[in-house]
Amino acid sequence: MLQNDERIDQLYADDIQIIQSKEVFSFSMDAVLLANFPNLPKRGLIVDLCAGNGAVGLFASRKTQAQIKQIELQPRLADMGIRSIQLNKLEEQMEMIPLDLKEAASVIKPDSVDLILCNPPYFKEQPSSKKNPNPYLAIARHEIHTSLKEVVDVSAKLLKTNGRLALVHRPDRFLDIINAMQEAGIAPKRVQFIYPKPDREANIVLVEGILRGKQDGFRVLPPFFIQDEYGEYQAEMAAMLYGK
Amino acid sequence: MLQNDERIDQLYADDIQIIQSKEVFSFSMDAVLLANFPNLPKRGLIVDLCAGNGAVGLFASRKTQAQIKQIELQPRLADMGIRSIQLNKLEEQMEMIPLDLKEAASVIKPDSVDLILCNPPYFKEQPSSKKNPNPYLAIARHEIHTSLKEVVDVSAKLLKTNGRLALVHRPDRFLDIINAMQEAGIAPKRVQFIYPKPDREANIVLVEGILRGKQDGFRVLPPFFIQDEYGEYQAEMAAMLYGK
Repeated sequence: MLQNDERIDQLYADDIQIIQSKEVFSFSMDAVLLANFPNLPKRGLIVDLCAGNGAVGLFASRKTQAQIKQIELQPRLADMGIRSIQLNKLEEQMEMIPLDLKEAASVIKPDSVDLILCNPPYFKEQPSSKKNPNPYLAIARHEIHTSLKEVVDVSAKLLKTNGRLALVHRPDRFLDIINAMQEAGIAPKRVQFIYPKPDREANIVLVEGILRGKQDGFRVLPPFFIQDEYGEYQAEMAAMLYGK
Repeated sequence: MLQNDERIDQLYADDIQIIQSKEVFSFSMDAVLLANFPNLPKRGLIVDLCAGNGAVGLFASRKTQAQIKQIELQPRLADMGIRSIQLNKLEEQMEMIPLDLKEAASVIKPDSVDLILCNPPYFKEQPSSKKNPNPYLAIARHEIHTSLKEVVDVSAKLLKTNGRLALVHRPDRFLDIINAMQEAGIAPKRVQFIYPKPDREANIVLVEGILRGKQDGFRVLPPFFIQDEYGEYQAEMAAMLYGK
């Protein structure tokens, strides 16, 4: 089941085992935060775009009866995700599709999705930008094969009216997110800023928008701290990782 | 010096006395937060738009040598501000001008201002909206005589290149602020969300933008809590009100 560089990690809170590899891809805190951010639809269809090794969809799976389809460009990462679905016996609920998200509409009907989750590449691709020399990680982190605008535009196509897009990203891209959503007809509605600890600036942002939603009712959720002032995981963070 | 319904309040932190009236206008926490939000230029020109009884400019005055010009539409409020300037012996540094901000360029040279502070009316004016029956308060709180877009457009005209606009507003208008700034060529740069206490959603937002600034480097400052979990003013809030 495992290739050489792989290991199985456990997310205790959601009772999920996940195949990881330092050489290729390991999930981050961002995936845990994203899976816990939106109110998941009880049933219907959830899509996880830029799925990587499948962490976000796997973590969400225990909290919903909805079908979960995952799309990942890199076959090596998608393959880890496929095996993690088997490992957790989630084949009935989940499917990992190795595919460029540009082609998503070939496997997912437009106007059919209740919720899209996406942990996209964070960094703008610029000729001058320093990239990770590891090509798996470079593609996962930099906008080499996709961009925020493309992720949002594809989401607008796949979502039902009033379907939701939930993204995790970096706060310095917040304006880009807001602008891309509005241009695509997705009204930003809920945002939560994540701070590494009290008295520090936010380093992660969670944003949820509604396709063809009204342009009002924007809400800023309570701040979320990863660590408390003593450097320990704050209670809510610990609960997401280890359970309550 | 005082009219019937007026009283003199003190902001101890900044050693400022301010003429107030429950019937007409009293400053709120928002004014204190705004005056403490931007890094004030040491000299040059600061403009306080929608100045009300002058609280924001008065509170800022002790922290800078810059000239401060205040513009307030309602003569009754501007008159209180003029007398507060006298009361604090700030005539050399400050000037309150009773004027519609649409006419601001008649008294302030375009492209000349280092920093604009504004605590504008928060509520959209709609035929159906419930307004305060007190006309002074209705004008101060509802977009009856001005709008967010107008405030931002006037600011873009008055500011120097790289001059800054700092606003206090409600989080549910956050998208309107971001959109209006970007349309006017003001790049949003710093934002801070103010929460009434931990575990509550934000109810105030502070936003600072730079005229003709680059569209990157957006920062979300540490969350600011008015009260701690026990309902007491949190230390930073208390310091803004009572001094350290």
